[in-house]
Amino acid sequence: MRALHLSDTLSFLSDFPSPEPQPGEALVTVRQAGICNTDLELVRGYMGFSGILGHEFVGTLTSLPARAVDPSGRTLEVGCRVVAEINCSPPGGPSDPALRAHDPLRTTLGIFRRSGAFADHLTVPIENLHRVPDSVSDDEAIFTEPLAAALQILEQCRLTPTDKAAVLGDGKLGLLCAQVLASGSAAQVVAIGKHPGKLALLSTLGISTRLLAEIGPQDARRFDLVVECTGSPHGLTHALSLLRPRGTLVLKSTYAPPSPGRDPHESLAIQTAFSSALTQVVIDEITVQGSRCGPFAPALRFLAERRVCVQPLIAARYPLVQGIEAFRHASTRGTLKVVLVP
Amino acid sequence: MRALHLSDTLSFLSDFPSPEPQPGEALVTVRQAGICNTDLELVRGYMGFSGILGHEFVGTLTSLPARAVDPSGRTLEVGCRVVAEINCSPPGGPSDPALRAHDPLRTTLGIFRRSGAFADHLTVPIENLHRVPDSVSDDEAIFTEPLAAALQILEQCRLTPTDKAAVLGDGKLGLLCAQVLASGSAAQVVAIGKHPGKLALLSTLGISTRLLAEIGPQDARRFDLVVECTGSPHGLTHALSLLRPRGTLVLKSTYAPPSPGRDPHESLAIQTAFSSALTQVVIDEITVQGSRCGPFAPALRFLAERRVCVQPLIAARYPLVQGIEAFRHASTRGTLKVVLVP
Repeated sequence: MRALHLSDTLSFLSDFPSPEPQPGEALVTVRQAGICNTDLELVRGYMGFSGILGHEFVGTLTSLPARAVDPSGRTLEVGCRVVAEINCSPPGGPSDPALRAHDPLRTTLGIFRRSGAFADHLTVPIENLHRVPDSVSDDEAIFTEPLAAALQILEQCRLTPTDKAAVLGDGKLGLLCAQVLASGSAAQVVAIGKHPGKLALLSTLGISTRLLAEIGPQDARRFDLVVECTGSPHGLTHALSLLRPRGTLVLKSTYAPPSPGRDPHESLAIQTAFSSALTQVVIDEITVQGSRCGPFAPALRFLAERRVCVQPLIAARYPLVQGIEAFRHASTRGTLKVVLVP
Repeated sequence: MRALHLSDTLSFLSDFPSPEPQPGEALVTVRQAGICNTDLELVRGYMGFSGILGHEFVGTLTSLPARAVDPSGRTLEVGCRVVAEINCSPPGGPSDPALRAHDPLRTTLGIFRRSGAFADHLTVPIENLHRVPDSVSDDEAIFTEPLAAALQILEQCRLTPTDKAAVLGDGKLGLLCAQVLASGSAAQVVAIGKHPGKLALLSTLGISTRLLAEIGPQDARRFDLVVECTGSPHGLTHALSLLRPRGTLVLKSTYAPPSPGRDPHESLAIQTAFSSALTQVVIDEITVQGSRCGPFAPALRFLAERRVCVQPLIAARYPLVQGIEAFRHASTRGTLKVVLVP
């Protein structure tokens, strides 16, 4: 089969062996898949992953040992469209997907010791599959995984009607988090970013937006909860400046370690930023909530119920054979979702 | 009066003007006071404080505008022994001490815009005073403030009987936090530190202790809650290595910014430690809880009920006139509480 394979570099292979489903696994034919920031980081060496990339996808169920039902009670049968939770436990592992995400024996689709979806086919444990409702398009379904990650915030944090929440960062994840908080909680939500064009996507949905450059002293310590979606130490500093004492900071992004050739004096500044941030966490008694993978069933429900709007987040579409070019495009600053179609 | 005064440097002054109580304030004559790590940091420039240091003290109530009762219902009267919460609000501020700790208009005894207790006298808002029960000695009473800070962990975090908790760091605060968790929760508690002599204080109280050097892979990801009391980036890394996914990391220490003359290459290593730590917070969905000042009434109750043992934490005692020498002693690595007696 064809596959985008990462070893030292990313390459397109036209004759990669098709995967053989193991006991308890299904074979899925990929319909389309999205490139995520994590994929870009994996190419830069994050996690030391080697293999087929890709964890945001929708596919057609191609072989299944026996008819089954998904966690929402929908029938899984050959020919139906599916998405899949990305954390896989070996047989006998936890049945709760939230626990599988922290199973020390887990493999993760296209991220850690398991082949991903930038290929014609992949194999997935049956327990990870969710049938895609007919009313959800393929373009929408590829957002199930990042949308679930955004919904995880509401699994972890309680937001009340009097709460003010800010989402910092207008990348793909920031735009999804802002939509999820606005439509899935009663809090007053504002999205803060650098790109008027991206924030406009939220404005058309009736969500308040602010340009980072417009944020001033009047906004300091005004928010009960801030979701940090920039992944930069400066984003962390900004997020904390917006937060009231005893507020909650949700970290959705990981922080890249300094690159080998980095100017050590820049590191001094970043160290200062990190140590000041942690000191503020103590003085203001901030709760910092790390947040990663989330629940798929409500993500599909939010898509089916049109509680979020993801179609405008698609920036470009490439055939799998042009995967390298697609990655180059996805790496360009400010690009939203790039889709690969096998 | 005599006072230990910090401007550019710390000096002993024999003729500092005695403070005049303002409306709503009482005059307190200091009986004795403890030197805290925060005092040492203030001398190094933290917070830019200038004035009389000292916030852990017990004193005799010397003048009071009118008889009053403290938050526990004990009568405040001239001649009685008192301790005082350190965060002071201007008139009309919050009546809840927990809210005063985050009042943006607050002053803080010996730390921020208010004279402290390393002197013959100080003035304190009456609402901040707590009468010391007769069964609590002066030596014990000076631990009310740091003990309250340790109790704050139990105000913020729920510990269950099946929880395993670790306290990292065997300095003054670490020893108090370990005692508070062991005697104030049903969790299984272990204190981890570098100094056998200090850990022995806890062992005699029946608290499990471990030397940091003995901590190995078998301890990794074993704890539900870890209290970080070292204040070093390496302590942060250690604490996270002990914590299970979705566990809680309590930060009790602030992190000093890099000193001006620091080797930038060392900063590179610390930046790497900080960014790895925050990445782990996201991947393992850790809850980080910043924790600072705590409630005085239960701290006095814990002392009165002998639920903690603080007397052995006193390392030395100096008259106020030898305050500079006392600070030098307190700065010596591994020194526990140094007490100043006016």
